[in-house]
Amino acid sequence: MAENNQRLRLAMLGGGDGALIGGVHRIAARMDDRYELVAGVFAPDPAANRQFARTLGLAEERVYADYQTLLQAEAERPDGAEVVAIATPNHLHFPMALAALQAGLHVVCEKPMTLTVEEAEALARAAGESDREFLLMHNYVGYPLVQHAREMVASGQIGKLISVQVEYVQEWLTEEPAADNKQAAWRLDPEKAGAAGCLGDIGTHAFHLARFITGEPVSAVSADLVSHVPGRVLDDNVQALLRFEGGARGSLWASQTAPGHENALRIRVIGDKASLHWQQEAPNELLYAPLNAPAQRITRRDDLLGNAVGRSIRIPGGHPEGYLEAFANLYQALADRVRSGQSVAWLPGVEAGVEGMRFVEAALQSSQADGRWTAIRPVDTAAGRR
Amino acid sequence: MAENNQRLRLAMLGGGDGALIGGVHRIAARMDDRYELVAGVFAPDPAANRQFARTLGLAEERVYADYQTLLQAEAERPDGAEVVAIATPNHLHFPMALAALQAGLHVVCEKPMTLTVEEAEALARAAGESDREFLLMHNYVGYPLVQHAREMVASGQIGKLISVQVEYVQEWLTEEPAADNKQAAWRLDPEKAGAAGCLGDIGTHAFHLARFITGEPVSAVSADLVSHVPGRVLDDNVQALLRFEGGARGSLWASQTAPGHENALRIRVIGDKASLHWQQEAPNELLYAPLNAPAQRITRRDDLLGNAVGRSIRIPGGHPEGYLEAFANLYQALADRVRSGQSVAWLPGVEAGVEGMRFVEAALQSSQADGRWTAIRPVDTAAGRR
Amino acid sequence: MAENNQRLRLAMLGGGDGALIGGVHRIAARMDDRYELVAGVFAPDPAANRQFARTLGLAEERVYADYQTLLQAEAERPDGAEVVAIATPNHLHFPMALAALQAGLHVVCEKPMTLTVEEAEALARAAGESDREFLLMHNYVGYPLVQHAREMVASGQIGKLISVQVEYVQEWLTEEPAADNKQAAWRLDPEKAGAAGCLGDIGTHAFHLARFITGEPVSAVSADLVSHVPGRVLDDNVQALLRFEGGARGSLWASQTAPGHENALRIRVIGDKASLHWQQEAPNELLYAPLNAPAQRITRRDDLLGNAVGRSIRIPGGHPEGYLEAFANLYQALADRVRSGQSVAWLPGVEAGVEGMRFVEAALQSSQADGRWTAIRPVDTAAGRR
Amino acid sequence: MAENNQRLRLAMLGGGDGALIGGVHRIAARMDDRYELVAGVFAPDPAANRQFARTLGLAEERVYADYQTLLQAEAERPDGAEVVAIATPNHLHFPMALAALQAGLHVVCEKPMTLTVEEAEALARAAGESDREFLLMHNYVGYPLVQHAREMVASGQIGKLISVQVEYVQEWLTEEPAADNKQAAWRLDPEKAGAAGCLGDIGTHAFHLARFITGEPVSAVSADLVSHVPGRVLDDNVQALLRFEGGARGSLWASQTAPGHENALRIRVIGDKASLHWQQEAPNELLYAPLNAPAQRITRRDDLLGNAVGRSIRIPGGHPEGYLEAFANLYQALADRVRSGQSVAWLPGVEAGVEGMRFVEAALQSSQADGRWTAIRPVDTAAGRR
Repeated sequence: MAENNQRLRLAMLGGGDGALIGGVHRIAARMDDRYELVAGVFAPDPAANRQFARTLGLAEERVYADYQTLLQAEAERPDGAEVVAIATPNHLHFPMALAALQAGLHVVCEKPMTLTVEEAEALARAAGESDREFLLMHNYVGYPLVQHAREMVASGQIGKLISVQVEYVQEWLTEEPAADNKQAAWRLDPEKAGAAGCLGDIGTHAFHLARFITGEPVSAVSADLVSHVPGRVLDDNVQALLRFEGGARGSLWASQTAPGHENALRIRVIGDKASLHWQQEAPNELLYAPLNAPAQRITRRDDLLGNAVGRSIRIPGGHPEGYLEAFANLYQALADRVRSGQSVAWLPGVEAGVEGMRFVEAALQSSQADGRWTAIRPVDTAAGRR
Repeated sequence: MAENNQRLRLAMLGGGDGALIGGVHRIAARMDDRYELVAGVFAPDPAANRQFARTLGLAEERVYADYQTLLQAEAERPDGAEVVAIATPNHLHFPMALAALQAGLHVVCEKPMTLTVEEAEALARAAGESDREFLLMHNYVGYPLVQHAREMVASGQIGKLISVQVEYVQEWLTEEPAADNKQAAWRLDPEKAGAAGCLGDIGTHAFHLARFITGEPVSAVSADLVSHVPGRVLDDNVQALLRFEGGARGSLWASQTAPGHENALRIRVIGDKASLHWQQEAPNELLYAPLNAPAQRITRRDDLLGNAVGRSIRIPGGHPEGYLEAFANLYQALADRVRSGQSVAWLPGVEAGVEGMRFVEAALQSSQADGRWTAIRPVDTAAGRR
Repeated sequence: MAENNQRLRLAMLGGGDGALIGGVHRIAARMDDRYELVAGVFAPDPAANRQFARTLGLAEERVYADYQTLLQAEAERPDGAEVVAIATPNHLHFPMALAALQAGLHVVCEKPMTLTVEEAEALARAAGESDREFLLMHNYVGYPLVQHAREMVASGQIGKLISVQVEYVQEWLTEEPAADNKQAAWRLDPEKAGAAGCLGDIGTHAFHLARFITGEPVSAVSADLVSHVPGRVLDDNVQALLRFEGGARGSLWASQTAPGHENALRIRVIGDKASLHWQQEAPNELLYAPLNAPAQRITRRDDLLGNAVGRSIRIPGGHPEGYLEAFANLYQALADRVRSGQSVAWLPGVEAGVEGMRFVEAALQSSQADGRWTAIRPVDTAAGRR
Repeated sequence: MAENNQRLRLAMLGGGDGALIGGVHRIAARMDDRYELVAGVFAPDPAANRQFARTLGLAEERVYADYQTLLQAEAERPDGAEVVAIATPNHLHFPMALAALQAGLHVVCEKPMTLTVEEAEALARAAGESDREFLLMHNYVGYPLVQHAREMVASGQIGKLISVQVEYVQEWLTEEPAADNKQAAWRLDPEKAGAAGCLGDIGTHAFHLARFITGEPVSAVSADLVSHVPGRVLDDNVQALLRFEGGARGSLWASQTAPGHENALRIRVIGDKASLHWQQEAPNELLYAPLNAPAQRITRRDDLLGNAVGRSIRIPGGHPEGYLEAFANLYQALADRVRSGQSVAWLPGVEAGVEGMRFVEAALQSSQADGRWTAIRPVDTAAGRR
């Protein structure tokens, strides 16, 4: 595996002091030595921005006041950034991603992709007209056993899909967060987070995971969104039922008010031959339970899982890999695409973002209509990338 | 603990050769030596009935052709049966239970209590007018840690209820069962099982478990029932959303077409201070997960759980008890009531049956109305027993 | 399955008020309706003895002052006891069992079988000369999946045996027990418990379990026995290494001073093709882990495990059975032998007791000789029953 | 957290094509952006060496033919390497580490530190006379919950130490490995691996883990080493008993012939107040089981575990970290020491290496003397670093 050869030059938007996900992006980009951070706008406040960039060892002239300046200045440099990673609050994803694509950069963008379906569709059009790559950071599909689960479904090992039970549950917003909790502050603010709270923040991950593993679109949703904390505007607990295109049923539970749950993303996929069970907090195993036979514990082993998944595995079975490695797998796959032109079928792109925003919109509408089943318009993937 | 003193004289209806639950009733009744099987009608076929009764060592003259004869003949004996256990297909529960109450017997009745809400209400009235006990066999509440979970909720240890996730999932009807599978045959036949398939058979257990632990009525349901096996009339997969009286939300999944699941009844109860998690296949532990603190594994120990639950524990922690012991706890509690007049707050009675049938009816209606939220009329428990 | 037909008439020695295991014997004997308790000596104190027997509903004239009287009086009755269950402190096992065999009764005897190897060998001779059955209550082999593990080893599914890791660990004697704790009192008293403390009480169970599943004798032991509680005479923590006849190695850990462990009997059997892992606190599953392949979770299902084990299963997979059911399986198998002459290969008899006492003696000697490897003389099973 | 500021200049010895651990070192060094790989000798064959270095993007003039040349040449450069990482087969650790210290470099050295106690002591003396840092790569102590376990023991939370059960078990050498398996080849060759096989390769990790968490020296060992594969010279299965300085007992099992075990390092530490249980394959949780109270599942959360451990945590609880992150924690701590002069109490140094080699030597001697208890000479930690 090539390591630091031909590193991609990376710029970062957001992810300054006190951010969680910005640091994750940087570690993930560094993990396989395929990227080099060369520029950024890390914080709106100029002093904080410069101060933080200094801790990263960035050259001062490549720390910019805003993303517009960054895009313009980097475009003029022979050694300018090739990829931009957007790790800001939600409302900035769309303008930044659009501008970056138009400036000819590849984009790594946090989820949810945009605030609205309209923005998502506009971004998809822009991506379609561009020859640049767009990676939507549904990082959980970077786990090798999630990819393996998808392959098992695709190859018929679970038979016909019967149901999907997916949930993404956290405890961290059970109570009103401290005033200085930056990550909580913007997530609870509709202007920055959008009309969906928990639904947009982690419900979209759960939705995408179900879609990813089954390979089957969700055609309709019936949702019941509530907020359990007095005064909170956005939803913090989502109960939803799903209907898949092929007739399978499902449920989705997303909550940020569930004590005792740290980051409990879990999915069960039930077919008429077998079930699969995977959970993010124990990501190195996948339970495969065939009808009337002992369940099998499939582990993350490149010697057993085959080549397609093997690329996402760095170390032998029994040596746990985790969240950062899964995250890094998306960065690595993007580098493979950009540098080597390799096709990476599983990498989430703009279509996943459009689909996610249509799900969000449908779930919001359903909940406002007291749970009425609401269709999710299918994404045309014929033309594009997935 | 008194053992064979003052055994209750038990008659059984149903539970002959090839039945599962009949044998369970007999073991459970025998476990604590509080019952003696004295009479029965085990099968409709006279020869099979006699033949089976002989293997039980029953006196020939107390093996009857039908329940009417049994009730009449036993009533005339000075040593006649005091309790009747009804372990037949669903459609016989109502007439048998009604006749037994009217004949002055205590009743142990399998779930679902009746085929319809009307039958359930009629039976509740009959029970109200009688001074006999009525035990509805929601056996899973016999598990000590289910009872402890209920006490924890009641005493405020999980705080205000936020949501409940309950599921009861099996694999055994994923495919068309063999023609000679008696247990499957009547369960798939609407004349014997009623209008609800999986919903009535195991969905009612899941519903009651949620109701039992939370102590809070479910006020409305939105359900999506399907049957995945071609030609099957009754539902085999139930996805439902719940709303509790106090505002909490929930989901209920019941399925008999879920490969890799044997008898997977599981509940998670989420409050704003803590969550509880219990699963029937590992019944000797209860996970108690407080907000922002390590989760605790509470085990079945009479030295730690206190007196109320201690009565349902026979052996020390680390010595697993299971399904039969839980089942026996209901029989034992009934004997305590009848013989000692002890109040046993947790024993499910006719009210639980009425509530269960109202849930079934509401879920069926909701599903036929494409998931419309459908109210569940509350049961008046002020007057009666629970 | 025949239930109360031809019940065996059972007498009990020991197991009075405050005893744990006596009640377990009675429930186990009752479980399948193959036994009827008809006589007993439950406590040395005459008043306590009568009082306790009354709670069991025993006829007064069959409550005896001592075992000698019981054996003589029951022998003279046409409906006299056929089987005697010995559930006393260790030092009484030998005289009682010997006398019972000589009086022509079948014997169910608690472990350890005797206080010394000499007693064990004498009892084995007496059993050999008798035509009565002798059941040594190594109850853990009653678990269906323990029996299945034994069959898997015997049929070559794990390949050549490499090692065995077995442990039986409890916390209940970590501190000095309360003065009124009867079960602790005699177990810590060398006159009643014998020269081995934890080693005899639960180390023998661990030893037998390893012997039972592997089918291979342990040829030598190196042991390190200590007592962690000041003033305690007998061992409470046993660390030992094992060598099996065929060259496999092993370790055995038994402790009654291990906080956080309730009744943690666990065994791992390693062959060159696969490993097995079973633990008593989750007895309804057996982990089968083949070399370079996913581990399989084998569950307690009579439809999958086959006839030999099926006899030890009462209810379907997913309906947990536990300690009492496993215990009852030994009672049921004894009844099968006595009433139906069925051979039950796995039932522990006097040979297991002799072997167990030789292990105890060798481990004590090894520990006194600072861990010197000490041979365990093999038991001649050619002539006898196992 | 400073990221790429003041990166340490790193040279690497070993870790070329086909090696596992070399790549791990490089990812770990890169993870927190505290190191920059500047030089190396990756393979003995000159062409392979250059070829591999090219994939890393190293400057050609800093790819050297042998370590002596590297040390000399780098010493002469103003931008020469400051730290050398030794990731070769065992027999090269000693000469390379000694030379590197003498050349004034900080050393990161794979375990086992040397081939013999004599070499270990010589290296310790050299380190003592140097002002350079020496990090012995017992990477498993990098896991935050291992560090937390150590703190819990030190602060008295488990009470007085009673016993330790530690094991490190793998399956990969159950059969004769393929001829081209480089990692297996040198590990099975006494000239490269030393006199200890499995004992040295992974037994030393298990030993150190027990020593690290308890903080208590092991005073003696009784070992039984065997090789199960015909023709294999070095041990592949180690069963050992331990005695700790304060009187606690223990067992250690290390095996590379245990099917179904990938990298199963597991430890249980038993005190008279509580037990701890940690396993490497599920490293984000630590079970804390107090006497007569529910066990607690402690998770890797910097908001709950405190500052000392928090430095080893990058992302919130529920976002699993794994092997690479733990490994990186040692690299980061070394950087903290070198760049910031921070004291990092838990970092394994030459003393741990001396102790480990004394354990290896004692275990080998004990096994050759048929398990005789053999003392492990204590390491004087008064003067030095641990």
